[in-house]
Amino acid sequence: MAGTDTTKTYSSTPGPVIILVEPQLGENIGMAARAMLNCGLLELRLVKPRDGWPSDKALAAASGADAVIKNAVVFDTTSDAIADLERVFATTARPRDMTCRVITPTGAAKEIQDFTGAGGQGDNKAGILFGREAKGLKNDDLSLSDALIMIPVNPAFSSLNLAQAVFAVGHEWFRLSDDTPESELAMPKATRPAEKAELEGLFEHLEGELDEAGFFHVTEMRPGKVRNLRNMFQRAGLTEQEVRTLRGVVTSLATKRKK
Amino acid sequence: MAGTDTTKTYSSTPGPVIILVEPQLGENIGMAARAMLNCGLLELRLVKPRDGWPSDKALAAASGADAVIKNAVVFDTTSDAIADLERVFATTARPRDMTCRVITPTGAAKEIQDFTGAGGQGDNKAGILFGREAKGLKNDDLSLSDALIMIPVNPAFSSLNLAQAVFAVGHEWFRLSDDTPESELAMPKATRPAEKAELEGLFEHLEGELDEAGFFHVTEMRPGKVRNLRNMFQRAGLTEQEVRTLRGVVTSLATKRKK
Repeated sequence: MAGTDTTKTYSSTPGPVIILVEPQLGENIGMAARAMLNCGLLELRLVKPRDGWPSDKALAAASGADAVIKNAVVFDTTSDAIADLERVFATTARPRDMTCRVITPTGAAKEIQDFTGAGGQGDNKAGILFGREAKGLKNDDLSLSDALIMIPVNPAFSSLNLAQAVFAVGHEWFRLSDDTPESELAMPKATRPAEKAELEGLFEHLEGELDEAGFFHVTEMRPGKVRNLRNMFQRAGLTEQEVRTLRGVVTSLATKRKK
Repeated sequence: MAGTDTTKTYSSTPGPVIILVEPQLGENIGMAARAMLNCGLLELRLVKPRDGWPSDKALAAASGADAVIKNAVVFDTTSDAIADLERVFATTARPRDMTCRVITPTGAAKEIQDFTGAGGQGDNKAGILFGREAKGLKNDDLSLSDALIMIPVNPAFSSLNLAQAVFAVGHEWFRLSDDTPESELAMPKATRPAEKAELEGLFEHLEGELDEAGFFHVTEMRPGKVRNLRNMFQRAGLTEQEVRTLRGVVTSLATKRKK
């Protein structure tokens, strides 16, 4: 989807390092890098990428997340790739026959934020391991980790695209510092929510014209009909501009009838 | 990632219909279908897919979400594609210069569940529009919708892959009926969490051998050292099997020393 605003900068505490273990396709590495940057994650490490590195296909698939691709560092073993980290989480799609703590992406994000120190107070570093497409991480890689992350999805179809898994985990980290309201009314800068007096003006205008037009011909039903009409417009959360537009609509319809 | 368990079935209330408006690449349609099924969403509609339909590339990229692809229905206009729906949401990556309600994927999921009736009580149907790769939805499509969904991401890099956007929205719907705990200890079926008496047995065994070995040679420091050791093992949340393994380790090390 479109919408990148390159005039904006994103700053946050450094997020977890994303470590792709033996990724196969450059395209998937690129898409994972794009997903990382969508979530404000910058540091990518690769353990033995099958098709070599650097990769033109990765760069193309990153769709602009070039910095993530260009700064990616390649390692020979998972052990080397996590050597400087204090907390490591490993993603897996299936339960393994071993004793380990299993957490959701939300749980992982909270633990990472608590551990690495929100606001940059800590210099602890965390990382998240993602396994090969189709096969996932080996049990030996899981044993290097503090906990496993399982992304809750449809158990009958739980095979996630690599970039999708990176996004699902990364986005939970992003959301911790995101304060977007669940619902809000957006409007052009040139206007503002209508004041109740302006709404009242619209209602009286409309009801006056409807009186003249004979819409309320059964008098005892007038109050109920008026309430229904007002409720519809109340629900719409009109702006001042929209109230003026609607008054124009009423005038226009009424004038046509009168002619 | 691997892990699909085909012996499991997933049932839930029918989720929102996913409507891709003028999608360009078959691969993206396929990846979107895979993301849908990951989230338990089954019904896909396409408005004028650029490269025609059916699409072998879409089927390949769906990685097994064949039913979603095969049951997809193609429409000529967005209007036709939403004609039987009572609630429609439109995804967008950027604010538009129009007055409309903007909600997060979480907010949308809740509204859809409330509106369509959790538990299948309602027969109201909801749909979510996704625009073309790169360009998104046209303002005329947005005007067909009850509210806009904006996925909160890094404002400096907000361009989401189409399938990523479908997943980000669909997964919020999935999560409403998901009760995975944020953190839990998983273990093989053959074992169970150790009882405190079993842990106490391990501690006394270890401390006894350490006494013999002279580890606690400064007597006044013994209580503190014992507590530190016990704390480490307490934190690990050991299973009964692991306690037995550790007792074997203590015996093995002590025996070697004694020889």
